[in-house]
Amino acid sequence: MVKTNKSFSPAPSLLVVEAVINALKEDLGLAGDITTNGIFNDEQIGTATLRAREQGILAGSQFVEATFLELNPNSKLNWQKHDGDELAPKDIIATIKAPVKTLLTGERVALNFLGHLTGVASLTNQYVRKINHTKAKIVDTRKTTPGLRFAEKYAVRAGGGENHRFRLDDAILIKDNHIAFAGSINNAIEKIKEANGHMVKIEVEVDTIDQLKDCLSHKIDVVLLDNMAPALLKEAVELIDGKFTSEASGGVNLDTVKDIAETGVDIISVGALTHSATCLDLGLDIDITG
Amino acid sequence: MVKTNKSFSPAPSLLVVEAVINALKEDLGLAGDITTNGIFNDEQIGTATLRAREQGILAGSQFVEATFLELNPNSKLNWQKHDGDELAPKDIIATIKAPVKTLLTGERVALNFLGHLTGVASLTNQYVRKINHTKAKIVDTRKTTPGLRFAEKYAVRAGGGENHRFRLDDAILIKDNHIAFAGSINNAIEKIKEANGHMVKIEVEVDTIDQLKDCLSHKIDVVLLDNMAPALLKEAVELIDGKFTSEASGGVNLDTVKDIAETGVDIISVGALTHSATCLDLGLDIDITG
Amino acid sequence: MVKTNKSFSPAPSLLVVEAVINALKEDLGLAGDITTNGIFNDEQIGTATLRAREQGILAGSQFVEATFLELNPNSKLNWQKHDGDELAPKDIIATIKAPVKTLLTGERVALNFLGHLTGVASLTNQYVRKINHTKAKIVDTRKTTPGLRFAEKYAVRAGGGENHRFRLDDAILIKDNHIAFAGSINNAIEKIKEANGHMVKIEVEVDTIDQLKDCLSHKIDVVLLDNMAPALLKEAVELIDGKFTSEASGGVNLDTVKDIAETGVDIISVGALTHSATCLDLGLDIDITG
Amino acid sequence: MVKTNKSFSPAPSLLVVEAVINALKEDLGLAGDITTNGIFNDEQIGTATLRAREQGILAGSQFVEATFLELNPNSKLNWQKHDGDELAPKDIIATIKAPVKTLLTGERVALNFLGHLTGVASLTNQYVRKINHTKAKIVDTRKTTPGLRFAEKYAVRAGGGENHRFRLDDAILIKDNHIAFAGSINNAIEKIKEANGHMVKIEVEVDTIDQLKDCLSHKIDVVLLDNMAPALLKEAVELIDGKFTSEASGGVNLDTVKDIAETGVDIISVGALTHSATCLDLGLDIDITG
Amino acid sequence: MVKTNKSFSPAPSLLVVEAVINALKEDLGLAGDITTNGIFNDEQIGTATLRAREQGILAGSQFVEATFLELNPNSKLNWQKHDGDELAPKDIIATIKAPVKTLLTGERVALNFLGHLTGVASLTNQYVRKINHTKAKIVDTRKTTPGLRFAEKYAVRAGGGENHRFRLDDAILIKDNHIAFAGSINNAIEKIKEANGHMVKIEVEVDTIDQLKDCLSHKIDVVLLDNMAPALLKEAVELIDGKFTSEASGGVNLDTVKDIAETGVDIISVGALTHSATCLDLGLDIDITG
Amino acid sequence: MVKTNKSFSPAPSLLVVEAVINALKEDLGLAGDITTNGIFNDEQIGTATLRAREQGILAGSQFVEATFLELNPNSKLNWQKHDGDELAPKDIIATIKAPVKTLLTGERVALNFLGHLTGVASLTNQYVRKINHTKAKIVDTRKTTPGLRFAEKYAVRAGGGENHRFRLDDAILIKDNHIAFAGSINNAIEKIKEANGHMVKIEVEVDTIDQLKDCLSHKIDVVLLDNMAPALLKEAVELIDGKFTSEASGGVNLDTVKDIAETGVDIISVGALTHSATCLDLGLDIDITG
Repeated sequence: MVKTNKSFSPAPSLLVVEAVINALKEDLGLAGDITTNGIFNDEQIGTATLRAREQGILAGSQFVEATFLELNPNSKLNWQKHDGDELAPKDIIATIKAPVKTLLTGERVALNFLGHLTGVASLTNQYVRKINHTKAKIVDTRKTTPGLRFAEKYAVRAGGGENHRFRLDDAILIKDNHIAFAGSINNAIEKIKEANGHMVKIEVEVDTIDQLKDCLSHKIDVVLLDNMAPALLKEAVELIDGKFTSEASGGVNLDTVKDIAETGVDIISVGALTHSATCLDLGLDIDITG
Repeated sequence: MVKTNKSFSPAPSLLVVEAVINALKEDLGLAGDITTNGIFNDEQIGTATLRAREQGILAGSQFVEATFLELNPNSKLNWQKHDGDELAPKDIIATIKAPVKTLLTGERVALNFLGHLTGVASLTNQYVRKINHTKAKIVDTRKTTPGLRFAEKYAVRAGGGENHRFRLDDAILIKDNHIAFAGSINNAIEKIKEANGHMVKIEVEVDTIDQLKDCLSHKIDVVLLDNMAPALLKEAVELIDGKFTSEASGGVNLDTVKDIAETGVDIISVGALTHSATCLDLGLDIDITG
Repeated sequence: MVKTNKSFSPAPSLLVVEAVINALKEDLGLAGDITTNGIFNDEQIGTATLRAREQGILAGSQFVEATFLELNPNSKLNWQKHDGDELAPKDIIATIKAPVKTLLTGERVALNFLGHLTGVASLTNQYVRKINHTKAKIVDTRKTTPGLRFAEKYAVRAGGGENHRFRLDDAILIKDNHIAFAGSINNAIEKIKEANGHMVKIEVEVDTIDQLKDCLSHKIDVVLLDNMAPALLKEAVELIDGKFTSEASGGVNLDTVKDIAETGVDIISVGALTHSATCLDLGLDIDITG
Repeated sequence: MVKTNKSFSPAPSLLVVEAVINALKEDLGLAGDITTNGIFNDEQIGTATLRAREQGILAGSQFVEATFLELNPNSKLNWQKHDGDELAPKDIIATIKAPVKTLLTGERVALNFLGHLTGVASLTNQYVRKINHTKAKIVDTRKTTPGLRFAEKYAVRAGGGENHRFRLDDAILIKDNHIAFAGSINNAIEKIKEANGHMVKIEVEVDTIDQLKDCLSHKIDVVLLDNMAPALLKEAVELIDGKFTSEASGGVNLDTVKDIAETGVDIISVGALTHSATCLDLGLDIDITG
Repeated sequence: MVKTNKSFSPAPSLLVVEAVINALKEDLGLAGDITTNGIFNDEQIGTATLRAREQGILAGSQFVEATFLELNPNSKLNWQKHDGDELAPKDIIATIKAPVKTLLTGERVALNFLGHLTGVASLTNQYVRKINHTKAKIVDTRKTTPGLRFAEKYAVRAGGGENHRFRLDDAILIKDNHIAFAGSINNAIEKIKEANGHMVKIEVEVDTIDQLKDCLSHKIDVVLLDNMAPALLKEAVELIDGKFTSEASGGVNLDTVKDIAETGVDIISVGALTHSATCLDLGLDIDITG
Repeated sequence: MVKTNKSFSPAPSLLVVEAVINALKEDLGLAGDITTNGIFNDEQIGTATLRAREQGILAGSQFVEATFLELNPNSKLNWQKHDGDELAPKDIIATIKAPVKTLLTGERVALNFLGHLTGVASLTNQYVRKINHTKAKIVDTRKTTPGLRFAEKYAVRAGGGENHRFRLDDAILIKDNHIAFAGSINNAIEKIKEANGHMVKIEVEVDTIDQLKDCLSHKIDVVLLDNMAPALLKEAVELIDGKFTSEASGGVNLDTVKDIAETGVDIISVGALTHSATCLDLGLDIDITG
């Protein structure tokens, strides 16, 4: 059984609509789909059937909705799968009834969003399935595609993962350079607490057990255990002993994630979810006769 | 020797700057890098060294420039590799001298662009190398990441590939639905020519040799041979006999591309260049002492 | 009989709506139509009748629609003429039923768009009528009003003309400076082909028969015969002999276009269509009693 | 001697830069000037000489500056004519030194702005010269090209004209519909004064001497005498007797403006200044050798 | 009885919608109301009751409408008070029926607009009530919150005040520095008239009776009597004797405004209306059960 | 001694520049400062002296910089006070040397930002001074002016306060409606934890001691004690006993804040900091002679 968290927050619809309008403008240029416009009339209604061609987890249906509705507000979309649902090859995801011109003009933009976001959700879910038997959670990073962070982080949620911080301003992540300049972990944390409000969590990145020990006496929320092998991670988790949330990062892939999760770590952050997901193969078959 | 076309057009710098500003706003939120701001002062100058950690082809240096210059116009970037250059692990790509605050605040945005675009260029170049011994060229598609088409198509050029059409309005691609509605290939081409100017090329997509034969008597520019096995492609190329540009698409991957190219086809279009490239691994080491 | 191509592509509606919103904001300022707001109440419904006061070809009805619908989504527009239709003085083009406030507030923006675009379509059509008996086609240039290229090129289509390239990136036009720097026409074409994809047409501009002869052995798509008198044009067309599309430009006006077309040239490009069309006179009579 | 008001306000430079950036994006598309990029290198410096090919009044030099500086901040522009100056054919307006790529890429956008705005200034000045011997002033209307009102109203100022209201919110213009709904001129003015501040001028449009007489007892600022023949205008001006500013509109062209001005009217408003100015012919000769 | 001018112009709805969208994006970030999204489902409908908790004058209902309609176009708003209406504590202003998610997500943005604008209207009305027995009018200034000038000037109108100029370009205000550079009031006015159109009013600021006397012989529209005590104001008003509109500014507060108005001055401009109004206290009670 | 935290994060400069450009466009309209443009030439250089007229804490100097530099990049600003510094009446804050046109054109926009943000910082600091002897901290809320949240939260930091959450997506605040729908505090927290990542803090709002007791067994970060009188707050703080951060809100003003802080609460959140701060009085004296 796939552990898919179906109560994930939607992406804000204002952002979805804005992204879709920009993508349509990018694809339509100054004259639109000149092939389709030269051949079809406005009256011809068609039906498009959106199908999966690979296994995965659906994400991005709001973007498909917005694409066809921006082109023609009378488009009718009928969804048979919803974001977060498992897809098998040949599964019908949705049917869309609209003028053929609308269907052909919007096809590529709709598939570009859906293929990319379903790719992110599907890869996320592969990680989630590997660690289903542990208490660990898969989270993303800020290694997102510029302009699409809100969408990719949503796709991670749809795939059963959770989100690390959204931006630089909503949580603290103290790294080696910060500690070096502050002089000590202690100084760094004090300066951070003095400069920031009480609603941001504080995470400190450590590479070694010694650095971790330096953290133990401080009131922080999360420790990022960077690039530690499972044995070392296990030792770290034991040392932490529930005092902080423990997060592992670095060297995480589909082969290593199970061993990492079994160390007892709370959180595993994976840059690949967003920077290296590939497009899920989808098909849109258009019946131009109604 | 890699065949890399070093005379590729740059991405328009207005678009680069706009994309970078949007990415910075996406990452900085309302208060910026609150970790770094809480610890560093404005005077501390540092040097960042950007290195490759994998083999590939560089693309996106303009985006890195723009990131640091938007944050601080006095940032100094010194490039040792240029877009289109081959990268080997540990190669130094550039050094950047700027306040440490600037370096830390811009790091993620700069790497998100550079990693993604270098990934696209590198994957493109892997295809190019496979078919170096033939006359075929690798081209991209409209299967790009929404909002980043200009950047990804630039990365394809940097990787030694060429670009298919940029948008729906700058070339004609007649597909099965268009032909069906028009009644025949002949009708479709006539309607298209009547409705469009003389500066757009006309491409017709065919799946079979019979469809190809229907095209032979028409004045078109390119035939898209979709999802044909190499033997069939070869037959098609011979039938075309230089009358049109021949383009193969569908089922192209790093394993099949060589056989496809050796059929004598002129152009091979590959959606994966942009929809399924993964991020190239890069490192930015920051020396906070100057 | 006017040769008007009624199958011209519409302007992308996203661009229409965006242009209309910007024009309304430009005209309304921070408080809107303070004259009308000070006098009319919201309940008073009126009917506006849009009439031609001059002969011409209608273009821009989408902009009128968008103007009144953006101000009040319940506005009802009833079109009796459509883009591409011939207009005679006193012809009713449309009636619009909406609150009088909406009609008066939107009047100027709606007429500014419609008058300008109808002016472009009408001037285009005057050229088209002059050469109706030949095979030549009238096309526009990039000499458009900044910000309105999509709209003006649409108006050219509505007037029975066709579009030259939309932007600098969708077709090649090699001019004297390019050839001079490349060293020869041959070098220029080779460099261009190496740097660009297979979907862009290549046009070369020549001023003399000698330059034209240099082109004859090259695989290009279009030759631009610049500023040639009809006799010379005729000689050029004969030399080209169907090998390329031939395009005449320079010195084209309503007096000269017939002679130019009769030389047998395929295409005549006319900057004046967009840079020197004057507004067509239109009237909007508002009946404030319902 | 031309009466040209050289103390006209400049267009706000923020608006100039924004308009230029939008125009460049419109023209460059996703890959820029692919012809020039395929042939020239970045090092080749050239000099462009901007010349008038017709007589007129210059307007729009800020837009040319912004075009080349946005493309390359090191462009050097040397102006020999300034906005408001008279141009004769062959006059050198400016020279521009920049990389040839910059010159060729920016040429069309720069000329599109300059040709259009110089056209508006030149037409305005033709009207101004006709009435130089009278006290009347030429003013524009709100019949401007959507998106370019700030630029066209600036060009009117450069041509020696003055501006009518900028938008609907900065002055009151009471027309027949307003009076009809209010019940009387008196009611209309009272409602307007109650609803609006003391810094907006109030103008009332009248078609007949009787309507004008109705205005005489009211405290308004301007009377718009619409579509009155010179004899009637003269009668109207005498009736007004300096009590209000008098403005003539309707039926104004280069043949009628002198007679209208000689009636003693203060202001003549001319829609054609902005809605029907044609582009002034300008040339940009580029020396690619430095 | 409160003198509230109920015929005030509405704020342009395009600007309202744009401001609301920006405010929602500012508040929702990349994932929206993660608290509400984590708990409520999409089906749960609720009713929100918007109540006054203080006395005041309502302004900004369009912003509340736009907030909930942008989040969910099916939201139903039922207004019991309208902009310009007096509010007493506990008065119900409106009820809003929508999914609870919509109500909770939009609550803060809606209240931020409504509280601020109602605050401006209420403060304006306090001034208006103090001078109800005089002919003076209360007007605002350009001392507005950046980005919200259109909204705050609307709120001033809703509160029974009127608007001074909207921007720098729609009326002339000659101050000491202008007069000093011009050499005299006379020169300043002449230069201004030469450079500007006939539709802008001219106001001159004076600090002393002597300066005022210098103005008396000029054809201007308004004199701004800056920082004059009531006795001096009275003297100034008598000197002006209806020749110009008289405007008092400086040192105006709720304690002084009555005495100022009783000097017979026409206009009293008050920066505090927009720069120092505090939020009116409002409550939104949400019944999550329907 | 004022406790002012001088290490507060700056506002992101991209947001500052964008806000300033929008404010300048709002104030300049289509023709700019027509009074100043009609009188001054471009050569006249002046010096402006920015002075405090009231006591307070400076905030917003970046906005003043951006205003004058956007209008003229050669403006020279010399700051004698910095954000976070105490101001006394007559203190010189900065001098600005630029063309007089630049100084007069930018004056109002610069002062509108600086007066508003200094007002927020000054009010914040009044609260901070009242509780200086306790460990409590003053924080803001989301009750900010639409469009200026980043700026107002920065001003709070400059005034010695700290920031509560920036947006709805960066921290959890569970209120009565959330608990009611979830069925219990326990259910609400569980649902929230399941749906959200580990980097967001969880705060629960309680009105009574009983509700607080329900929270004590849960792993949350902050308890919001809403509208409790000091005696009750004290009881609550004792019950919490350092288990969570305690935050008081409701009924906080300059008279009550000291008693609230002395209850031992960690955090006091004050909506008035941003929704009811009034503009601090500042003067800009311009010497037009250099």
